[in-house]
Amino acid sequence: MKITKVTEDAVATLLDDLLKRSPNNYTGYADKVQAIIDDVRERGDEALFEMTKRFDGADLNADNIRVTQAEIDEAYTLVDASLIEVIRKAMTNIRVYHEKQRQYGWFDTTPDGTILGQKVTPLQSTGVYVPGGKAAYPSSVLMNVIPAKVAGVEKIVMVTPPGKDGKVNPGTLVAANEAGADEIYKVGGAQAIAALAFGTASVPKVDKIVGPGNIYVALAKKAVYGYVSIDSIAGPSEILVIADETANPRYVAADLLSQAEHDELASAILVTTSEKLAGKVQKEIEDFTQVLSRKAIIEKSLENYGHILIASSIDEAVEIANAIASEHLEIVTTNPFEVMTKIRNAGAIFIGENSSEPLGDYFAGPNHILPTNGTAKFFSPLSVDDFVKKSSIIYYSREALAAKKDDIIQFAKAESLTAHANSIAVRFEDK
Amino acid sequence: MKITKVTEDAVATLLDDLLKRSPNNYTGYADKVQAIIDDVRERGDEALFEMTKRFDGADLNADNIRVTQAEIDEAYTLVDASLIEVIRKAMTNIRVYHEKQRQYGWFDTTPDGTILGQKVTPLQSTGVYVPGGKAAYPSSVLMNVIPAKVAGVEKIVMVTPPGKDGKVNPGTLVAANEAGADEIYKVGGAQAIAALAFGTASVPKVDKIVGPGNIYVALAKKAVYGYVSIDSIAGPSEILVIADETANPRYVAADLLSQAEHDELASAILVTTSEKLAGKVQKEIEDFTQVLSRKAIIEKSLENYGHILIASSIDEAVEIANAIASEHLEIVTTNPFEVMTKIRNAGAIFIGENSSEPLGDYFAGPNHILPTNGTAKFFSPLSVDDFVKKSSIIYYSREALAAKKDDIIQFAKAESLTAHANSIAVRFEDK
Repeated sequence: MKITKVTEDAVATLLDDLLKRSPNNYTGYADKVQAIIDDVRERGDEALFEMTKRFDGADLNADNIRVTQAEIDEAYTLVDASLIEVIRKAMTNIRVYHEKQRQYGWFDTTPDGTILGQKVTPLQSTGVYVPGGKAAYPSSVLMNVIPAKVAGVEKIVMVTPPGKDGKVNPGTLVAANEAGADEIYKVGGAQAIAALAFGTASVPKVDKIVGPGNIYVALAKKAVYGYVSIDSIAGPSEILVIADETANPRYVAADLLSQAEHDELASAILVTTSEKLAGKVQKEIEDFTQVLSRKAIIEKSLENYGHILIASSIDEAVEIANAIASEHLEIVTTNPFEVMTKIRNAGAIFIGENSSEPLGDYFAGPNHILPTNGTAKFFSPLSVDDFVKKSSIIYYSREALAAKKDDIIQFAKAESLTAHANSIAVRFEDK
Repeated sequence: MKITKVTEDAVATLLDDLLKRSPNNYTGYADKVQAIIDDVRERGDEALFEMTKRFDGADLNADNIRVTQAEIDEAYTLVDASLIEVIRKAMTNIRVYHEKQRQYGWFDTTPDGTILGQKVTPLQSTGVYVPGGKAAYPSSVLMNVIPAKVAGVEKIVMVTPPGKDGKVNPGTLVAANEAGADEIYKVGGAQAIAALAFGTASVPKVDKIVGPGNIYVALAKKAVYGYVSIDSIAGPSEILVIADETANPRYVAADLLSQAEHDELASAILVTTSEKLAGKVQKEIEDFTQVLSRKAIIEKSLENYGHILIASSIDEAVEIANAIASEHLEIVTTNPFEVMTKIRNAGAIFIGENSSEPLGDYFAGPNHILPTNGTAKFFSPLSVDDFVKKSSIIYYSREALAAKKDDIIQFAKAESLTAHANSIAVRFEDK
């Protein structure tokens, strides 16, 4: 991993490199994705089954596209019982954290007879995309389904691509069943997103689609945005560690590697005020990499998106962290809580040397579906907020309206909207 | 306006017609919009000035694209002083309502040394699109800018297309200045959205773009979604009134017309249990329409998207309202508050015969930028929520991590992420 002194140019180049990874930039795929969506919208199930044959190699039809209770039961026999216990413990933590995100409706009154408020209503249905194949992550199933459940969504529809044998990863099925997914369909890729957005004979249309996926899934979600809601457009994983000379280089190195192993586009960045720490972390990373199972991916991602930056002060390190807006941010300094107060942009902030990033991935409770690729500047972690929506409530008495009528009429007329003005005036016309 | 008895088919056809109005369906414009965006992204100001000449007929350059204090001062001389007073009164109401939407960060601790929480941070900058030309709406300026201000956004950048004379509507300028917009640029259309998303030499890049616009603006917002955040994709305005025999037909007719006058795609629907009311409303609408200034627009929108439906019960009326998910919903029945409890999907709910929809457009306080086109099933009114984002906070003591380490390691290994497992294990290795 390269060690660089912080300069404006170095940071600008780095930022530029990182942003190039955005799914938004893969414009070459957009037409292909749109064609898949149009096809599913038009031909429904027929298109789904054809594509599942072509892309996943599985023969599916209306009778077996939906996962049955028997398949779920079978999955339980294939997953280690002690892992199921761990999943349940993690679920409790995730549920407890997300229950604190619940929002409540409110209203306020004035004595002349006005009621103004905000009603909070759960979405009626939501779709959850879960990647399949090699990378089956039961933890992602929990992180997608539990907030929807806590919000009170009535129907949670999961989709995930099947293997060639037409089966779904058993860990995924167990996690889905534990978390409370209501229906599970064996379909993946852009075609699954299209099915959830528009509905087919087999797959129901939903109000919102959440969950990460590959480039086809990301672009399909963007394409159907507006027809349905989506959580965000997920990009590659990222970690940024702010550390001073008090940090343990072995811990820092291990944490950087935990993100680098995700995929070749993942990014791992250390910003430190200590050249000594930088050198030690560099060495530890080399040593660890040799013995880790995902060595090839790690070497590639570190080469392209791994950086060790030497900052002249913690404030400068904070500035860089805010500019990069990393998905995961660790703060390992003498006074990490004070540093945290200066962080504007980060998906999740891990404080102190024991708060290793994977703790958040699996267990602590906060969601691990986080804004990537600089989008922590404006997006939030997946949360209960994603599964509710609000309606304004307005009640005025005749007395209250009488007191305001002239102002409203004047405003409406100033905008040349005479029917607006009329709707107020008519209530006070001479009978 | 047609009177129809509610049948499943009638409602399905109506829903279908309404959804066709979505900007999402104007795929023919998408390529044109993308070309504009690419051009601005590549050539910056140069492209902006060319397009402003071509589309708005105005000669602009780096010296006059930004609205000056002198121009704002001039605007104050052109706007009726009593209207400015009305604007200020409306602003107070809007601010008071939106201040109640403020969200606060929180954290919780456990005695073994864990802190879990959520940090709420305002966006640093936001762009506000304000339509220009004939339809200059100072009220929309207030509704876009005030929530951002209440959230604590540091830089609010407004864009609005200039007239041929290179000037901006004075009402827009006064409202922007009163509400607290920090910078105003004379640029509109898809090119303005591109400028805000990517930045040019003159126009700063922002984190989020809000505000309604025409089809080019709507599609441009969708195209830049992911590079920046957006509020929603705004479609044509809508009202749905649920009324029983106790409703005043003149009020109902006037309120339906207040939305029909917006544009030819606007929709106005009455769902009533009373055939008698239906007939009277129909008659009142005919009479009113003759004397309203926007008669031509009203006739067109009522012809295409105006409906009076006879429902067999209030519950059936509610079901239709939930299926349509109207931007504005009025409830004018014997017990409107009880009916409100059954409403799942609506942007804003107006309760009782004095709560006329235009009251909400201008004055009451709740936002008038609302989900349209069925999107109230999953989108919310523009609010302070739109201008903040969250970061998860995770702190674990060594003791807390020690108690969980085996579970986390097992979970990570089950997902074949050995570097994740290593980042926990390394903290407990023998020295």
